[in-house]
Amino acid sequence: MSRFWSQIVHDLTPYVPGEQPRLADLVKLNTNECPVGPSPLVLQAIRDATTDALRLYPDPTATALRQAIAACHQVRPEQVFVGNGSDEVLAHVFVALFRHEAPLLFPDITYSFYPVWCRLHGIGFETVPLDADMRIRIEAYARPAGAIILANPNAPTGIALSRAEIAALLDAHPDQPVVIDEAYVDFGAETAIPLVASHPNLLVVHTLSKSRALAGLRVAYAIGDAALIEALTRVKDSFNSYPLDRLAQQGAIAALSDEAWFRQTRSLVMENRAYLRQGLERLGFAVLPSCANFVFARHPMEEGARLAAALRERAVLVRHFASPRIADYLRISIGTRAQMDRLLSALSEILGRA
Amino acid sequence: MSRFWSQIVHDLTPYVPGEQPRLADLVKLNTNECPVGPSPLVLQAIRDATTDALRLYPDPTATALRQAIAACHQVRPEQVFVGNGSDEVLAHVFVALFRHEAPLLFPDITYSFYPVWCRLHGIGFETVPLDADMRIRIEAYARPAGAIILANPNAPTGIALSRAEIAALLDAHPDQPVVIDEAYVDFGAETAIPLVASHPNLLVVHTLSKSRALAGLRVAYAIGDAALIEALTRVKDSFNSYPLDRLAQQGAIAALSDEAWFRQTRSLVMENRAYLRQGLERLGFAVLPSCANFVFARHPMEEGARLAAALRERAVLVRHFASPRIADYLRISIGTRAQMDRLLSALSEILGRA
Repeated sequence: MSRFWSQIVHDLTPYVPGEQPRLADLVKLNTNECPVGPSPLVLQAIRDATTDALRLYPDPTATALRQAIAACHQVRPEQVFVGNGSDEVLAHVFVALFRHEAPLLFPDITYSFYPVWCRLHGIGFETVPLDADMRIRIEAYARPAGAIILANPNAPTGIALSRAEIAALLDAHPDQPVVIDEAYVDFGAETAIPLVASHPNLLVVHTLSKSRALAGLRVAYAIGDAALIEALTRVKDSFNSYPLDRLAQQGAIAALSDEAWFRQTRSLVMENRAYLRQGLERLGFAVLPSCANFVFARHPMEEGARLAAALRERAVLVRHFASPRIADYLRISIGTRAQMDRLLSALSEILGRA
Repeated sequence: MSRFWSQIVHDLTPYVPGEQPRLADLVKLNTNECPVGPSPLVLQAIRDATTDALRLYPDPTATALRQAIAACHQVRPEQVFVGNGSDEVLAHVFVALFRHEAPLLFPDITYSFYPVWCRLHGIGFETVPLDADMRIRIEAYARPAGAIILANPNAPTGIALSRAEIAALLDAHPDQPVVIDEAYVDFGAETAIPLVASHPNLLVVHTLSKSRALAGLRVAYAIGDAALIEALTRVKDSFNSYPLDRLAQQGAIAALSDEAWFRQTRSLVMENRAYLRQGLERLGFAVLPSCANFVFARHPMEEGARLAAALRERAVLVRHFASPRIADYLRISIGTRAQMDRLLSALSEILGRA
């Protein structure tokens, strides 16, 4: 507390990311990172860009990167916005598209940064409960709304809506911006990007942190009608001209060029997810049907907080949220087969089944 | 214009950075980049960090980097805030420290992003005229203020206040946050950082873009009382958890470690500035006394816009601002000796003295 602060600082409750400890031999399954490193083309592109040219500003419009993204998704470059991770892209989305008289709607259980951005930017919001199966019901969004944001697959549940359900939501809200946060879409869900052509109210957000294994590089993008992108660009150019450094721009272009690596990595994650799910069910866990690079699971006899703490003692980190409705669950990132085995044997030991 | 936009988007007038054309053989003196590449230690550190570890998130608190900055300036790590270039640091400063009932004060001629952030964040401001010699007079700030921000050296004039003048300003405004934007301080001005210990209202902002030759990497920092830093951290953690990627954090730490490179580069820039000034004065220009890596100069017989356009035809880019009081001036970045010679001979030709 300080008399020098703006009033809003007193009222903020910042987002708390998963911890990033530096312990040896840790099985780190708490922040949904990719179990394998990025495409070798990315590492080469970054090394090639590590030259005296770092003395020069990056391209503030990231034109080459936006062109690469546009080609990847068969849209035009003016339908693409890029930013420093999807957190920055979404922070700008909240300012640019969500400040209306009617409230922003999002699920009661979803990415916990959404209410944080609302408080930072003075945006009224209402949460819409997931149903008893922890699913988003789009019929529940038939109420006054200034805008809607959904994570699809949702986090931390991992459950996905179909593209047809997203299309129905868009058709029911033609006068409101609808943002689909597809951070985890590449692990088995359907992207809404093909709906952009027919829906000027749709914005889809993707990140390179998960399915391109580049959490450490901070690159994400949004795709939508050019008028939505222009709003984001105006806000970005009123905030920070150069959010993506030269290395990030080059690394991201290389990442998008390696389709073989991408297919292989998605398959690996989905195979290991099926393996983890079977192992967890064998230990008595109820596992929600995940289309993401994590599962959300609870044990009928054990508290989530106790399990997370016991795993931590065994050098296995998972994420636990001490929040209503989900305090019994663990969110477990998909790792390598060896990491899945270490998690499962630690759980087996904790549950007294060793 | 779109019905999906938040109202504020209609009202924004984004900052326009200097152009970044990709032309061969261009003499680029329009964005105050360093004429030489960064320390070789930086390039090595980035190459060393270009590994599979890019799959992992960076340290959201940038602890190692903040420790390196603290050691460099003899402050404590909790007195250090880091961000994605000084534009991001300043954008957070405006939200965290400048939203008060009384207006923010800054000079009528200064970094043109300041009013842009005010409009983005809904901050009232008043500008305080520079005197007839284009100098900041701290006596002119003796008026109701919620906060004050000064660039020192000022941009685009390059003129610096002394540390004693900054101390007097701080003493005259003990109840207001005072931010000194020292992007250009390393080229001959006095930093206000030693005043932080005695002034809880002082925040000083530095960047690695200019005197560390890392415009392409996007790293900057602020130093001040821990309570001011906490306000910035709260805003940052309500906006984007991970603005500095792994490569930027490692590169910045290496940059701060190379004192020999730093001394040599500052000297080079200051020598070339003296050389440019002499050359310009020989051509009849009036050159403001610069402590920055640029000079601000006007010719008594020629319009600034015409000179800038004629230079552009000769593949020499300088910055011209079509703004009141400074439309006759050119802002010319300090380049290599060869670039200074190409600029001077192009001007000589334009002025008919060849």
